[in-house]
Amino acid sequence: MTNTVAYTAFNQGELGKALIDRLDEAAQYSEPGPGVTRLFCSQAHRQVLPLISRWMEHAGLTPQLDAAGNLVGRCPKAQAGEKTFIMGSHQDSVIEGGKYDGMLGVALPLLALEALKRDGVTLPFGIEVVAFGDEEGVRFPTTLVGSKALAGSVTPDQLEAQDAEGISLREALIAFGCTPEDIPATAREPANALGFLEVHIEQGPILEQRDHAVGIVTALTGIERHKVTLSGKAGHAGTTPMNMRHDALVGAAEMVHAIDSALQNTDELVGVVGRLDVHPNAVNVIPALVTFTVELRSPESATRQSGREAVTAALETVAKRRGLTINIENTYSADGVACADWMMTALEQACTQVGQPAERMFSGAGHDGLAMQALTDIGMLFVRCKDGLSHHPDEAITAEDGEIATRVIMTFLQQLPRP
Amino acid sequence: MTNTVAYTAFNQGELGKALIDRLDEAAQYSEPGPGVTRLFCSQAHRQVLPLISRWMEHAGLTPQLDAAGNLVGRCPKAQAGEKTFIMGSHQDSVIEGGKYDGMLGVALPLLALEALKRDGVTLPFGIEVVAFGDEEGVRFPTTLVGSKALAGSVTPDQLEAQDAEGISLREALIAFGCTPEDIPATAREPANALGFLEVHIEQGPILEQRDHAVGIVTALTGIERHKVTLSGKAGHAGTTPMNMRHDALVGAAEMVHAIDSALQNTDELVGVVGRLDVHPNAVNVIPALVTFTVELRSPESATRQSGREAVTAALETVAKRRGLTINIENTYSADGVACADWMMTALEQACTQVGQPAERMFSGAGHDGLAMQALTDIGMLFVRCKDGLSHHPDEAITAEDGEIATRVIMTFLQQLPRP
Repeated sequence: MTNTVAYTAFNQGELGKALIDRLDEAAQYSEPGPGVTRLFCSQAHRQVLPLISRWMEHAGLTPQLDAAGNLVGRCPKAQAGEKTFIMGSHQDSVIEGGKYDGMLGVALPLLALEALKRDGVTLPFGIEVVAFGDEEGVRFPTTLVGSKALAGSVTPDQLEAQDAEGISLREALIAFGCTPEDIPATAREPANALGFLEVHIEQGPILEQRDHAVGIVTALTGIERHKVTLSGKAGHAGTTPMNMRHDALVGAAEMVHAIDSALQNTDELVGVVGRLDVHPNAVNVIPALVTFTVELRSPESATRQSGREAVTAALETVAKRRGLTINIENTYSADGVACADWMMTALEQACTQVGQPAERMFSGAGHDGLAMQALTDIGMLFVRCKDGLSHHPDEAITAEDGEIATRVIMTFLQQLPRP
Repeated sequence: MTNTVAYTAFNQGELGKALIDRLDEAAQYSEPGPGVTRLFCSQAHRQVLPLISRWMEHAGLTPQLDAAGNLVGRCPKAQAGEKTFIMGSHQDSVIEGGKYDGMLGVALPLLALEALKRDGVTLPFGIEVVAFGDEEGVRFPTTLVGSKALAGSVTPDQLEAQDAEGISLREALIAFGCTPEDIPATAREPANALGFLEVHIEQGPILEQRDHAVGIVTALTGIERHKVTLSGKAGHAGTTPMNMRHDALVGAAEMVHAIDSALQNTDELVGVVGRLDVHPNAVNVIPALVTFTVELRSPESATRQSGREAVTAALETVAKRRGLTINIENTYSADGVACADWMMTALEQACTQVGQPAERMFSGAGHDGLAMQALTDIGMLFVRCKDGLSHHPDEAITAEDGEIATRVIMTFLQQLPRP
């Protein structure tokens, strides 16, 4: 495919190279060790802010750290209170994560805005780009604190969540120079928000498999998690005949296999048994107790529900046949969120103009849009990810794909309707 | 069944009651906590010795602590160097074990000898009953130290094995009042040994299922252990399509199920996956690596080998089909040991005379016979165990079964051929 939209300020290839260079530079602000480790309100978080602020200034935005630890860049129209389109993603990473998860969605729209500015384009609405302080929820047992602040959904008890050293989120924010008591005032006025768009690395292999640089997200997945406790009967592994055993691990094994089989042929539904623990877990003792988790993800609640029913029925059948006691406890549940039709259509049109295929896909991961949808319409653009790898030091995108995604955003912004 | 052999010294029921009373008394010598915890060369070990010594004296034996921490009771003929039949079991327990595992095989033959003595029976050969110091191998990473000493197979490096506090077996023996340098001299002369018989709680459910009080052991199982390492590919559980995964836990689950299925229909072969660990073991991450153990037990090496081949083939088939890397490492291997035909026959005859069925069974657990067979012919009598439970505070036998087993041993001893 060739690029059919020409820009004068950046020659073909220069945007992609600039994007990769900026993300390499941002990755230097990290804890020591492999990959990027940049937690919320950490020293690395503080150190990366001047760099992002410079990107914002190059894009014509004025940077400001808000009460919830977000670095917000606003153009003059946004500062003047005009209707505003919001973009952005999170600055924080997982432990030993990659350079692109989060920071791509900060650097890319800022580079797109800088290119538009150098091309002399003036957008007819306000623009705001946010580097959310926390999305990953690694340091504190809370997630999406940054986007929840914009959406006005941070609750006082969330500020009391503590990190591993007993420091509360409130204390960490104060030490970071923020004023958590002002978080309610950071909530945006819904009537003033034109929408929220996040660019994010795919974190999966679908675009690579399709050989597409970018994909248009239809929805953010809903997630439910269950804890299964399976009780059998302990016994000496040498002296209990095979046919007299109630081996909890053999039962769990049949269940894990059954869950995987049940999910193989259902579109838009994925699931995993990610955690499994055996008791007493000794080489010569028949396992008496196994606990495992079942996570199901689908953007559609009805799809998730039918998946859950199929899985539950399979588990109960196995438990009954094997004489095992089973308990299934729902530990987490969050509904999926759909992206706005008009945003998907506008992204598709932009892709087409840039000469790129524009296929749709759902996001199996959660993102800031889960919180932002309470404020405004949301949309997401995924960028192809090498080997589907994310949350890993080897996480990578190519400069070519970065260039394509930047030009898609430049085109998208210019075609948004005047408010 | 009714008892057809009458003894004058103990009325019907009195032997069983005496046996249970003695084992209850011995169980008081234990670390604090549930059940019995009596480790090798511990304070509880020291405290129980006077009680066992009294039982020995009642049986006409002279007790002596040997160089390896065994309490050995010898009759005058044995002390005089005549050919000697050896009985006994271990005084030590697992952590929070029961009253019967080990100590039953010390108390029961001593009670049988005491009853014979009170009945005026004189055996035409020497008798020795041993309370082995260590069989369980809980305190030190060695097992069967006591029976190995009699068989002459303790090696100097075994004496350097250390417990959790860094105390060597040699140091512990010296502190216990033993002389480890004399262990080689405790080895019995094979030409002088008529055989070794151990009475032991079954530790399994077979006798209970058969509704038999006792069973005659044909062989002590051989054991082999393997560590299986299964590598798949980590991935985000929300963003990797089901059909593009290499989930190590789904593969391991199919394998655990396949192992159990392969072992269901093979006589005299049991196996277990007792330990399984998942990495990274997080609710929302596709498992990248699973390690698990496979233990196979059979008295026959050929049976174990064909079981191993069936299991290995099944594992490699699953790994190949699922695109997983598998490594199978043999971590432990010990051949089984057969009981002597003449000892099994003699035990059968004794059972029949006592009016008891005399079915044979193999022992899926290891016992002191594994070491003693290097010295002399071995035999074992199993006693029915409540609910198949052992290595547990609730481990139990009935007084009735104890009485039957005691009378079987009394009859057995009287019918042994004159040497």
